[in-house]
Amino acid sequence: MSHTVEILSVGTELLLGSIVNSDAQALSRELSSLGLNVLYHSVVGDNPGRLKAAVELARSRADVIVTTGGLGPTCDDLTKQTLAECFGRKLVFHPECAREIKCFFARMGKEMTENNLQQAYLPEGCHILDNAWGTAPGCAFEAEGTYVVMLPGPPRECLPMFRERALPWLARLSEGVIRSRTLRVFGMGESAVESLLRERMNELTNPTLAPYAKEGEMELRITAKAGTTEEADALIAPVEAEVRALLGELVYGADVSGLPQVVLEAARERGLTLGTAESCTGGLIAKLITDVPGAASVFKGGVVSYHCEVKAGVLGVSQALLDEKGAVCAQVAGEMAQGARRALGCDLAVSVTGVAGPDPDEWGNPVGLVYTALAAPGGCWVKELHLAGTGGRRDRIRTLAANHALDMARRWLSGLDPAAEKR
Amino acid sequence: MSHTVEILSVGTELLLGSIVNSDAQALSRELSSLGLNVLYHSVVGDNPGRLKAAVELARSRADVIVTTGGLGPTCDDLTKQTLAECFGRKLVFHPECAREIKCFFARMGKEMTENNLQQAYLPEGCHILDNAWGTAPGCAFEAEGTYVVMLPGPPRECLPMFRERALPWLARLSEGVIRSRTLRVFGMGESAVESLLRERMNELTNPTLAPYAKEGEMELRITAKAGTTEEADALIAPVEAEVRALLGELVYGADVSGLPQVVLEAARERGLTLGTAESCTGGLIAKLITDVPGAASVFKGGVVSYHCEVKAGVLGVSQALLDEKGAVCAQVAGEMAQGARRALGCDLAVSVTGVAGPDPDEWGNPVGLVYTALAAPGGCWVKELHLAGTGGRRDRIRTLAANHALDMARRWLSGLDPAAEKR
Repeated sequence: MSHTVEILSVGTELLLGSIVNSDAQALSRELSSLGLNVLYHSVVGDNPGRLKAAVELARSRADVIVTTGGLGPTCDDLTKQTLAECFGRKLVFHPECAREIKCFFARMGKEMTENNLQQAYLPEGCHILDNAWGTAPGCAFEAEGTYVVMLPGPPRECLPMFRERALPWLARLSEGVIRSRTLRVFGMGESAVESLLRERMNELTNPTLAPYAKEGEMELRITAKAGTTEEADALIAPVEAEVRALLGELVYGADVSGLPQVVLEAARERGLTLGTAESCTGGLIAKLITDVPGAASVFKGGVVSYHCEVKAGVLGVSQALLDEKGAVCAQVAGEMAQGARRALGCDLAVSVTGVAGPDPDEWGNPVGLVYTALAAPGGCWVKELHLAGTGGRRDRIRTLAANHALDMARRWLSGLDPAAEKR
Repeated sequence: MSHTVEILSVGTELLLGSIVNSDAQALSRELSSLGLNVLYHSVVGDNPGRLKAAVELARSRADVIVTTGGLGPTCDDLTKQTLAECFGRKLVFHPECAREIKCFFARMGKEMTENNLQQAYLPEGCHILDNAWGTAPGCAFEAEGTYVVMLPGPPRECLPMFRERALPWLARLSEGVIRSRTLRVFGMGESAVESLLRERMNELTNPTLAPYAKEGEMELRITAKAGTTEEADALIAPVEAEVRALLGELVYGADVSGLPQVVLEAARERGLTLGTAESCTGGLIAKLITDVPGAASVFKGGVVSYHCEVKAGVLGVSQALLDEKGAVCAQVAGEMAQGARRALGCDLAVSVTGVAGPDPDEWGNPVGLVYTALAAPGGCWVKELHLAGTGGRRDRIRTLAANHALDMARRWLSGLDPAAEKR
């Protein structure tokens, strides 16, 4: 039988809108793929009466309560006290936690104030969740059939704590092991992918197949529950094969962070270097590539040629061509990519030129008209895109354009046609 | 007396973690600055029984209920039916809404399927909230002392609907008008700003003064309630003056989107052009600048010189200097900025070179050591930053470095010392 979960977030800053509740999203995703059924999110402020009522309510309607926030050292931090009280437990001092907290401050080279030791008080008999990413430890316990997990609020503590510390403890709730594998898809709209797969998604129960739409691409997550890791993986494999057979080369990776990582790894393997030439994306592609740690071994650099002067001067795009056709055309995209290869001394270069909006350009090209190109050993390819139908927002057009450019490099590196016309 | 609010979000996709509840954050911020007291957020799935219980609960503990989601045309969309039922109202067909929906599809050049007309059924006697940003209209009504507002889920519909449609209706709950002004602060840590202002923030009731920490900078929002706009503005002015007197040149703008907008506007006013030379930020500064629509009139372009070859080849940084000192030093930052001015033909150029991590560079420079520079008519300035103490995450170091570089340009354009040593 599937367990039901409520995620209870504590913090007035959430109710004031100072921060977004990204913990609830990330934990929901993790808990769902464990096979647990998240039925409620709730948020209350740093108020003991309302928090207590919220805990009693959560207890009455879910059998797993995961709290985030309110574990810190200040008098606003009430989560532990309140939950301990609701479940009839005392808070007791845990010297091993106090040691960890002192070590954390020593590592950061900071002075520890005395109130930080408040964080070493935890409910009697609980399972301690060590916090290697901050100071406040979390904890977990079972009381009268309710499973309680308390995590700190800051996302960069909350998520690793959940994955590294809480997950092994929660594993008791799902018999056997849970494994998941995420396929990344680029080149087909989310509604098209969903309508292709909807029937299978509805049929499948173990493993499950769930889609997650992302800006300009899609994820398909396959999750299996089984007695052992090997059995779970054996359940996943045929579904992965089925999806790959259906979507073919649109699946660009499994368990990867995105197109930049895939392009960087494929180039690294083949000993090739990479560069960019960007107009309307304005540095976004270079930014996405250098978001990946270790990009320096492959990525040589980029040119953001926002003005035509820079296209001509730095990248060597023909001035006559720019004068005659303007900056947004297939030839300019091609010359930008080839110019970037030369100027940056790299093996592969991608380029983008187009109209991100909000207004058409001075040549009357419409918002959403974008050309992407790839210059590589053996040729130069150009793609013409019409991205206005996607809502026409500037940031979305730029993200899609960047992904299309990266996908051309990905396809060339995988031995596929980089797409469309070769010049 | 201050009204209490619950934001009730409806949608299984939130509970699966497919999307983050950004509506709840944005609405909380808006509602709080209206002087309303947001006490609860809750999320339930597309399940009539649980939704009904959630509505009854919200009604028992808040006097304003704002719902998001579940107004669409599919059978999963249950919000209107359920709330109408809870408050004893019938759903009735609103022909004027049906016309709007048909017009929307005509404008988008799309075929309208019949089920879209479901969206024209709204609770009897409600106030209709027209949706100019999508198809599902929202609505608002008062029933037995509870104020109900229903908004669509997609953030780019929900937020403009709230501001343009729901706010005027909710104004009845706060007598008079509400005005707010947001000051943006760069160059002092959030805890330092908060400790400087905490006492005043606690004292002030009208206007209120609230801090919002952002990645690498801060916002201070002043919100006043008064009989007229003029009276509200007159309440805000002295508090703004007080904050500006306290923080001085750290306040870089009021009601602006960020440093890039301020830099672009100041450069545009003075008829100057802008360029960038980036190493560890890898295109982020250029991306942030070109996020602003209309950047093209000022921003000529940028060079992402990730490899030393590109620093020397494209930007003309001295090879001897790179060989002797490596890429991360004050001189290289300065030569990059000066090289960008030359290569891009711009009046002002900012540059960044540093170690974003996760590992120290090959010369042994530690993670977080960053140099930013500004080359401008009349000189070149360099700043040395140590950003590791801020958690040491790669993305945070890059964001902070980008903001420091932009802030140097902002300061120069405002006639201030761009900071630190001149070379």
